[in-house]
Amino acid sequence: MENVDYDLVIIGGGPAGLTAGLYASRARLNVLLIERVAPGGQVLITDHIENYPGFPEGLSGPELTDKLVAQARQFGLPIESEEVESLTLEGPVKIIKTSGREIRTHAIIIASGASPRTLHVGEERFQGKGLSYCATCDGPFYRNKTVVAVGGGDTAVQESIFLTKFASKVYLVHRRDQLRATKILQERALANDKIEFVWDSVVTGLDGFFGLESVKVKNLKTQEERTLTAEGCFIWIGIVPNAGFVGDSLEKDPWGFIITDAHMATSVPGVFAAGDVRNTPLRQIATAVGDAAIAAYSAEHYIENLKS
Amino acid sequence: MENVDYDLVIIGGGPAGLTAGLYASRARLNVLLIERVAPGGQVLITDHIENYPGFPEGLSGPELTDKLVAQARQFGLPIESEEVESLTLEGPVKIIKTSGREIRTHAIIIASGASPRTLHVGEERFQGKGLSYCATCDGPFYRNKTVVAVGGGDTAVQESIFLTKFASKVYLVHRRDQLRATKILQERALANDKIEFVWDSVVTGLDGFFGLESVKVKNLKTQEERTLTAEGCFIWIGIVPNAGFVGDSLEKDPWGFIITDAHMATSVPGVFAAGDVRNTPLRQIATAVGDAAIAAYSAEHYIENLKS
Repeated sequence: MENVDYDLVIIGGGPAGLTAGLYASRARLNVLLIERVAPGGQVLITDHIENYPGFPEGLSGPELTDKLVAQARQFGLPIESEEVESLTLEGPVKIIKTSGREIRTHAIIIASGASPRTLHVGEERFQGKGLSYCATCDGPFYRNKTVVAVGGGDTAVQESIFLTKFASKVYLVHRRDQLRATKILQERALANDKIEFVWDSVVTGLDGFFGLESVKVKNLKTQEERTLTAEGCFIWIGIVPNAGFVGDSLEKDPWGFIITDAHMATSVPGVFAAGDVRNTPLRQIATAVGDAAIAAYSAEHYIENLKS
Repeated sequence: MENVDYDLVIIGGGPAGLTAGLYASRARLNVLLIERVAPGGQVLITDHIENYPGFPEGLSGPELTDKLVAQARQFGLPIESEEVESLTLEGPVKIIKTSGREIRTHAIIIASGASPRTLHVGEERFQGKGLSYCATCDGPFYRNKTVVAVGGGDTAVQESIFLTKFASKVYLVHRRDQLRATKILQERALANDKIEFVWDSVVTGLDGFFGLESVKVKNLKTQEERTLTAEGCFIWIGIVPNAGFVGDSLEKDPWGFIITDAHMATSVPGVFAAGDVRNTPLRQIATAVGDAAIAAYSAEHYIENLKS
């Protein structure tokens, strides 16, 4: 059997990566988790999580991350800060090239997550203070309030309809004069009298003292500027997988998400994916931990088979 | 649109059912959860859970159940104690017949779980005190201890090998003189010097004062009885889905588990399944909550489409 540094390397330290690490280290695999910045992933920017099962009072993203790290470390999971540059996946030993070294491993779990596309109008300032990328997560916080939604695709339209269950009014800002979303969603949105469409427009600024108070939009045809008073702003102009380092070595869907089967196996034996980076129907902490438990279990059996 | 009692009925109150209920009530669906006994499911018999992500100190099954119930109730989920007798799934309105009434609903999430086959030697007494059905869950509690494993199929053999990572010795008790497991697993188990095979034998009793101390086995060929000193006993003589009430109305795998796709959709539109009752590669709390979030999301979109 060929010489390796690890049985398993997990790439990414969000809920998926940390859960895979918990399961793998509990199964006593020789495992390493690498994360490019700090453990947590997108969860770190989440102010209040109320739909991760087990926490009736809710908790913050950093709080959940601390718990996940403590739990995985308890079983001996080593976590290192390293950025992956590329993968070499041909042959039984996989090679992970990071900024500082090359790591040889039998198996890999990719749990590097995804990032929402941003508006580039300084929205970082309102992260957790009115700015959101997830109606399922944050919609209920806007009961009887006015919100702005941005986008024109299926997600934007569907989630704007969902928001009307809570919000008293939803401004839907779209850069064109018609929606890209499927017909049925369009019809529903157009018939919904809580939704006011702001056509041909882009968001040019966000304002507020403690939290978000208003959103500036500009009509691209008339160049006219307008200020919408709103306590929430939901951005749905797309989400991008953090999978640049994967290149063409694994099969991806048309949006670049890694394709897996029910065992979280990718198109290359020994390489698994879990959480937001894969082609999942729903991106939630609950689904990330479910994926990760399966990916670790599959990796464990893959490694066990190699060794026999 | 036809008249119904609910948009969605969730059958089962374990982690999958309660998570589906949390998501569905948070999405403001008109939803009901029904559970035949008390919320919790198999988790209730779990003494200490250390691999559900988010609880570094671990927690008991009843503790986790209380948290899941409180969280779902906070969003208004009604939970009723009713046993399902049968389902009528033809047509757009599904009918659930319980002991007391008929419930009409647009959609159903089946989260009724699974039960381990039992030995019928009074093992209830040692539930959480040495008796286990899950090596992934409980194996690490038996570091440097002696355990008994029961069964001869893939699960029994694979999990016995897994147990040798922790236990100093594993007696593998099987009623025949050879294993049913696949060849490669057999070879591995037979080569593992921590595993001692107890052939042609069945467990006839469990003993211990506070916790399990010994396991009585009887050789079926010689009728000889023997007492094995052990602090743990793992039973792997099969697991059965709690899906009798489903009958032939949904596609099942050869073992009776409900077949779903990646969206947790079953073979009947509007009927979804989540957790241990479905044909999943891994049965864990983490995977149950992941399934359930997806099932609720899928049900929500199914209902939304019906109403448009």
